Parts: sequence; C-alpha cells; structure tokens
Amino acid sequence: MRNIQLIIEYDGSNYCGWQRQNNGISIQQKIEEALEIISGEKLSITGAGRTDAGVHAYAQSANFYTESKIPIDKFPFAVNSALPSDIAVIKAYERDESFNSRYSAIEKTYIYKIYNRRIPSPFYARYAYHCPVDINIEKMIMASKQIIGKHDFTSFMATGGQVKSTVRDVYDIDIYKEGDIITISVRGNGFLYNMVRIISGTLLYAGIGKIDPSDIEKIIDSKDRTLAGITLPACGLYLKEIVY
Amino acid sequence: MRNIQLIIEYDGSNYCGWQRQNNGISIQQKIEEALEIISGEKLSITGAGRTDAGVHAYAQSANFYTESKIPIDKFPFAVNSALPSDIAVIKAYERDESFNSRYSAIEKTYIYKIYNRRIPSPFYARYAYHCPVDINIEKMIMASKQIIGKHDFTSFMATGGQVKSTVRDVYDIDIYKEGDIITISVRGNGFLYNMVRIISGTLLYAGIGKIDPSDIEKIIDSKDRTLAGITLPACGLYLKEIVY
Repeated sequence: MRNIQLIIEYDGSNYCGWQRQNNGISIQQKIEEALEIISGEKLSITGAGRTDAGVHAYAQSANFYTESKIPIDKFPFAVNSALPSDIAVIKAYERDESFNSRYSAIEKTYIYKIYNRRIPSPFYARYAYHCPVDINIEKMIMASKQIIGKHDFTSFMATGGQVKSTVRDVYDIDIYKEGDIITISVRGNGFLYNMVRIISGTLLYAGIGKIDPSDIEKIIDSKDRTLAGITLPACGLYLKEIVY
Repeated sequence: MRNIQLIIEYDGSNYCGWQRQNNGISIQQKIEEALEIISGEKLSITGAGRTDAGVHAYAQSANFYTESKIPIDKFPFAVNSALPSDIAVIKAYERDESFNSRYSAIEKTYIYKIYNRRIPSPFYARYAYHCPVDINIEKMIMASKQIIGKHDFTSFMATGGQVKSTVRDVYDIDIYKEGDIITISVRGNGFLYNMVRIISGTLLYAGIGKIDPSDIEKIIDSKDRTLAGITLPACGLYLKEIVY
C-alpha cells in the first residue's frame, strides 16, 4: 500500500467544512469521491485540520492509503480532473507508512483577514471579516505579544472542543496591512476549537479600543472565555501551512 | 434637479454585464432598483463603461438626475442598504448639470489579471484567467511598448462595436507580478469593443512565445484582427479607474 499525502487548496464558502457530516457537503467527501473516480477504490482520507464551514485553506494536508499506480507527480492533475473548481490538489507526496497528516503535524499556521473600510467590499464578502471602523494596528501588535508563548488558552477556546490539555504554544503572531486588508498570521504547535478566530477577535478588540492591550495577560490567566473578544466569523479564516 | 455621480465597485460574476438586457440581470438594473427604493423615483443611470458579463469593477462611474434630498455623504450607505453584497457604491459626488459619466470621461484604466500556476486557483476561478505555462514577463513588457501610443486599433477590436473612429490613444501599459498573479494595467483615452481583452491576449501570446514582441507594430499596421492574440475571457477584466 502507498501512503499518499495531498496538499489541498480550497474556497470553503460552499461547504459544511472539512469533515464529512450528515447536514451538508464536505471538502473531505468531495476529495474521497474524486479519489474513488480515479482509483476505483473506496478511500478514507485523514485531514490535518478539520476546518469549519466557510473556512478556507491554502494548504490543507491529508493522507490516505491506496493501491493506485498513478505516478506521484501526476496525482494532483488526476484528482483535480474529478474535483469542482473551488477545491484543488496542488501537490502530492509519497510518505512512509507511519505518516499521519493529523498526528505527525508539529506546527500549523492560520491567517485571518479583516477588510477594513467603511463600505464592505463586493470581492471579500466571503473571504474576510468586514470591520468598518478605524483599527489601530500598533495596539493589535502590542496585544499579540502577550498571546505569543506557551499558555493555558481556556479563555480562547469555544465550548464543544474535546481536548486532554488546553495548553498550546503560540510561536508567532504577525499582523500587517496591505491595501484595505489587515492580515493576522498565527503560528503554533496546535490550536483549540475556534482559538484562532477568538485570538483574532481579541486582537481586533484591542485595535478598536474595546480591550486594553495590557489586559491580555489577565484575560489568559482568568481562564474565562467571556473576557476575551468575539469569535470572528469563519469566512476570514485560512489554513495556511502545516509543518511536519 | 441634482446630478449625482456614483463610484461603484462590483463582482460581475453573477450579472449579464453593466447594461440592462432582456436575457439577464444587469448591474445597472440592480442599481436603478436600489435608487428607486431609496428615492421613490424611477431613475435611469448612465455608466461610463458598459462592462460585459463577468467583467468586474473597482470604480465604475455612473450618474443620474434626482429630486432626492439625501445628503451626498449619506448616499453610498443609503444605496448599499438596497443592493446585494456583490455591488457596492463606494463614493458619491454632486456634479453640475452638464456632467455625463460617459461622455465627460477623458481617461480610463482597466486591469487584466492572469493566474499563472500549473494548477488553477480555487479562489480565482471567476477573478482571473488561468494560464498554466511559464510566462516571460520581459517579453510581455517589450510587446507592450509598441502598443502604447495613438494607433488605429482595428486589429484589437472585436466585431460588434459601433464606432466612428478606430483610433485610440493608449497612454500607458504596466505589467507586474505579485505571487502567482500577473496584472496588466492599460490606461488610455478610451477603448474599442474587447480591446483590453485582445491587448491582454496578445501580450500573453508574446509572453508564451506565440507572438514575437517585435511583430506588434506589423500587427497594428495590418488592421487584421486575426493576427493579434486571443480575446481573453471576461473574468480577468476589471474597470479600475475613470478620470474626468
């Protein structure tokens, strides 16, 4: 059996999320169906990040075991021929038997996009969160410095996640503006449920004066979700990179 | 009567173009309907550029005469409240009676986006033309230098346009790459039907070796449409700016 890893880019707007669900069409399902068409096998794929409905990806990673003889460099084109235009396999790698795209991951990067102009953009309705008021990026950066590091992120976790530990290590947060778009890039060893969307909402609150940047440490220590900022909507979130 | 100019941004993907037509929903119709909702008047608006189906705009310009008392700075918000999310009025100006958004225009800029990667992007299927082969930007720039200037652009005009003169003055062409996107920006006093899409197709042909950059002058002189490159699809074209 070959163990194949796919790197997948997708516009999540029209899907119920990565993972198969009964209430909608998932990215996982579309890819498994495409793989069945090209390989003739009923395959099950494991994704690194189970993105929610509306969340996008520049580089989701998933693996599966197959008897297919398709050469590895032809794999992306073969799978894409059976995929809709809003999902694309951009690379494929042959991995050893033990590789698991979810459990072998040692680092993930997500980005969150905020569209900052009085009037929303017709091009970003499904691709960024619209914030019409002025944002102080310096204050966002000040707040982000306190989030970086190894912390118990209970204050930044939505209920519904099932985890053994709520401690995560955030390696870096980068915030920059290009045109009307503010991008928050968060890199860490892993994230709790909705953690990046809550970090982004908290940094936005720091940027619009609803949270004092110097209060972030207190918010972390409180382990109280209600003290952090809002959970920003799914449309602004992108799974950017996974490191193994 | 007030003469109001609107600057309009839109994602043209879901429309039959700017101008009202019997075979689909146009941007013009959506805006006229929105204006009727907020003003109570049946209005007719004049657009500067009659973009085709699928063509986008960052700054379409249109004007109309109205008895409405809505303050000018509130106009964008009022109109947007009655518009779908893929059309947005971003600015409004009070103009004197003689201003006509179409005939008063002295300069227009269109941009064309080419997505240049082996595999198409899930995010750009409706927002750029996908070219999977290597493109030599230097050759595109060499070819563009010969297009700049006042010429008879018959070789770069689709049939179906009704014009008195086929002479146009192209002031500038700027070509640059950001990530996987090559942008062609064309500024001129006006354009013939499909002219920017044909210029872009011709520059692309120069970039992929199907046309020699030094042959552009001959192509212009020939007044033969068949010698220029292909008409690139509507999805990559954006009306960028109009100067009065």
